[in-house]
Amino acid sequence: MLKNRMMEERPPEEELKARLKAARERLAKQQMQIKENKLPVLVLMEGWGTAGKGSCTGQIIGNIDPRFFKVVTLDKMTEEEKRKPFLSRYFAQIPEAGKFVFLDSGWMEETAGLRLHGKLNEKEYEMRLDSIRRFERQLTDNGYLVIKFFFHISEKEQKKRIKALMEDIDTAWRVNEDDKWQNKHYGKCQEVFDDYLERTNIPSSPWYVINAKSRKWAQLQVLETMTEGIDIALQNKSLAVPLLQNVFPLVQRPKLSEIPLDMRVEEEEYKEKLEKLQGRLRDLHNRLYRKQVPAVIAYEGWDAAGKGGNIKRITEALDPRGFEVHPIASPEPHEKARHYLWRFWTRLPKTGHIAIFDRTWYGRVMVERLEGFCSENDWKRAYNEINEFEKELADWGAVIIKFWVQIDKETQLERFEMRQNTPEKQWKITEEDWRNREKWDAYEDAVNEMIQKTSTTYAPWYVLESVDKKYARLKALRIIIERLEEALGEK
Amino acid sequence: MLKNRMMEERPPEEELKARLKAARERLAKQQMQIKENKLPVLVLMEGWGTAGKGSCTGQIIGNIDPRFFKVVTLDKMTEEEKRKPFLSRYFAQIPEAGKFVFLDSGWMEETAGLRLHGKLNEKEYEMRLDSIRRFERQLTDNGYLVIKFFFHISEKEQKKRIKALMEDIDTAWRVNEDDKWQNKHYGKCQEVFDDYLERTNIPSSPWYVINAKSRKWAQLQVLETMTEGIDIALQNKSLAVPLLQNVFPLVQRPKLSEIPLDMRVEEEEYKEKLEKLQGRLRDLHNRLYRKQVPAVIAYEGWDAAGKGGNIKRITEALDPRGFEVHPIASPEPHEKARHYLWRFWTRLPKTGHIAIFDRTWYGRVMVERLEGFCSENDWKRAYNEINEFEKELADWGAVIIKFWVQIDKETQLERFEMRQNTPEKQWKITEEDWRNREKWDAYEDAVNEMIQKTSTTYAPWYVLESVDKKYARLKALRIIIERLEEALGEK
Repeated sequence: MLKNRMMEERPPEEELKARLKAARERLAKQQMQIKENKLPVLVLMEGWGTAGKGSCTGQIIGNIDPRFFKVVTLDKMTEEEKRKPFLSRYFAQIPEAGKFVFLDSGWMEETAGLRLHGKLNEKEYEMRLDSIRRFERQLTDNGYLVIKFFFHISEKEQKKRIKALMEDIDTAWRVNEDDKWQNKHYGKCQEVFDDYLERTNIPSSPWYVINAKSRKWAQLQVLETMTEGIDIALQNKSLAVPLLQNVFPLVQRPKLSEIPLDMRVEEEEYKEKLEKLQGRLRDLHNRLYRKQVPAVIAYEGWDAAGKGGNIKRITEALDPRGFEVHPIASPEPHEKARHYLWRFWTRLPKTGHIAIFDRTWYGRVMVERLEGFCSENDWKRAYNEINEFEKELADWGAVIIKFWVQIDKETQLERFEMRQNTPEKQWKITEEDWRNREKWDAYEDAVNEMIQKTSTTYAPWYVLESVDKKYARLKALRIIIERLEEALGEK
Repeated sequence: MLKNRMMEERPPEEELKARLKAARERLAKQQMQIKENKLPVLVLMEGWGTAGKGSCTGQIIGNIDPRFFKVVTLDKMTEEEKRKPFLSRYFAQIPEAGKFVFLDSGWMEETAGLRLHGKLNEKEYEMRLDSIRRFERQLTDNGYLVIKFFFHISEKEQKKRIKALMEDIDTAWRVNEDDKWQNKHYGKCQEVFDDYLERTNIPSSPWYVINAKSRKWAQLQVLETMTEGIDIALQNKSLAVPLLQNVFPLVQRPKLSEIPLDMRVEEEEYKEKLEKLQGRLRDLHNRLYRKQVPAVIAYEGWDAAGKGGNIKRITEALDPRGFEVHPIASPEPHEKARHYLWRFWTRLPKTGHIAIFDRTWYGRVMVERLEGFCSENDWKRAYNEINEFEKELADWGAVIIKFWVQIDKETQLERFEMRQNTPEKQWKITEEDWRNREKWDAYEDAVNEMIQKTSTTYAPWYVLESVDKKYARLKALRIIIERLEEALGEK
């Protein structure tokens, strides 16, 4: 069993008091530094039932300005939440920069619970562990401090506490069925907890197993661990994070400049094929819904390449109750204050639904990279982070289709001028479009790098040659149909 | 099972050839960058017997200037190596800055082999996994590129290869008993390998499972993975590495300024006690040898504090066949070119032996910190790295005793002046000693931080009050005796 803090002995009362006082004062001071340095702090409170997580959390927050923290206790999962990737409800709760979130049991309780009740087989469990390790590492890589506590008490102590709570009518409600079940199956629980702790004990967010027999000593361990963690995180705040070697299988894709753009389709042929393909997609969408397969369709491309019209041809064929289109603009302040994938994690489709993103998380390695909205280290790290994000979706069972809508520089100029000269289309063209156009070559390099580094076997890029928009629309429909049929086991 | 590269398909012959050529050219170019950037590269080749690790290594090194690489194949462990911590023979092989080492099977083969033959129980196995993860992470944190390949072939393919090799008298020698044993117990081996791969698949040194059925395709996978890894490592070269939260149990120690230094011992009492204590230590050393317990005694302290004389009183009591004293000066060029702990890993005692270090690995957080011989990030990271290093020693069963020999500033001045004025002692005092003395306050802060952050329960610091050197010598003897008796289960 993981021990670390468990190996320290409760100090004598006087020393304990002095250290508690010192730690509280230190935390009070750190509050302002956390705010100034925009450090987000996520404290995960896990442990045995009746070990005192809740009351300890209460004691800790007594030392923090209420505007800077939130205690999150997650209710039973809603039907909607059950139809999302399991991490999404936790991702939704991550703190804003400069604030604390205390999560009174989170993804450990869920995962260990499912494991204990035989609801995760070995393979599913391993996949979850992978997901959890990637999730926590992404948080710390993106400047989060993640502190994980496991409150430990012995079988005997737990039994004693349950009995004491039950005997008093005012406290009996605090004992729930889970606590009693745990105590009855203490050995089995211990085994599952140990395995989970050992296998998610990653260097950047290690576990602290707290000896929770004495409440005051538990509180001191938590406070000292937190203040030391905050100190380390503040020192790390300005550091770049080493890049990781890619571990995802990639498919080869040509460079944009190597792709011919002279494909055309005649109006008549277009109409005929469009109708047929849309009909097939309509049917597929029904089967997708019945089989509860989620799909994510991502659109990126040059300004005026024809993304909007392309998306329209897709949605025309879909049941409006089963899809959402997410136009992605610059992030709002509350979005900017969190991990850059947060606004996408919270916009994922339910199972059976299709989410279409008009611009995507790839903004990180294009506009944010080229306009300096994030650091060099941020965008360089993002290729892997995005591959990991899409791996979550793929493992969850989602079909992921990513389109790059491609035109050449001359075509863009023609379309810009057309927009400028057509009064009802003038709103579609802005100064920014012209400015972006000047950086065409830099963007093209960035797009090539993006396509090369994020065309994984489970989420490859498809280029839509869109000088003839009609051609691009038919191609998009065909690819979507093919990928959905494949996912439904129909191909 | 971990798949990653296994999920990619062998490309058509023509593409394969073109990609091989491109990868070889890229590696040739990277050689100079590796040298210029002083990047050390450790390539670990693991996998099934007859999977072709050796011939692939041969192909790869064909593209590298022989002055820049070394292929290491470890022989059976010597008796001496069996009496060292298991990582030490691998640590000894890490490359110098700017060079490649190819390790044709290493700590995976050893660990998985022991596991397969029932020579590691679950707990010992888990401890090894912890050690391995820490070892690899320390390498990458210290600027090493670690690339890990596992060459995979199916049971059927292995059988076929063994048969083909055996049939030809010129190749039969290449099949060893292990290969045949593996093929007979393929399923069991697969299970052990999978578990090992999964649990040591750390983000900073992930596994690449190579489809080794086709030799040319295997070679391409290895070359592409290597060149991509080198590219990433070159980008990381100048980056600091985020500090980790401490996970080791600490004991509280007072600040140097709070420690009274007025203890004295009379000459007569000293002589009497010295003799007694040395006698006890002499006996203990014998029992230590019989029980094969190793011990590491580390001395740090102010210049002229009396380290040398103190050590002498210890060694006088020891059997010269059972101890070594390592005076530690500034590192030599070949030492500087490696992980700073390398020169200590290669100076560890055998079981039953005592190694005494006159100055130690703590130079990193004292002289190297204060004289700017390493970066701020380097010394800040070192507290944890050293705790991890000592954890290895403790887990291996070593007794670790660390002494800080303490005097006050006035006492040092007296002793410096005495040395200066005594012709036969003048060699003991240098300009550098005077310069260090000017930085007393900065050193004192560094020492306090060091003692606070590295006094773990398994390797705590002891302060020897050495204004009266006799007092300090008796105290050192008492502490050593106490700790050794404890380790021998005699207390």
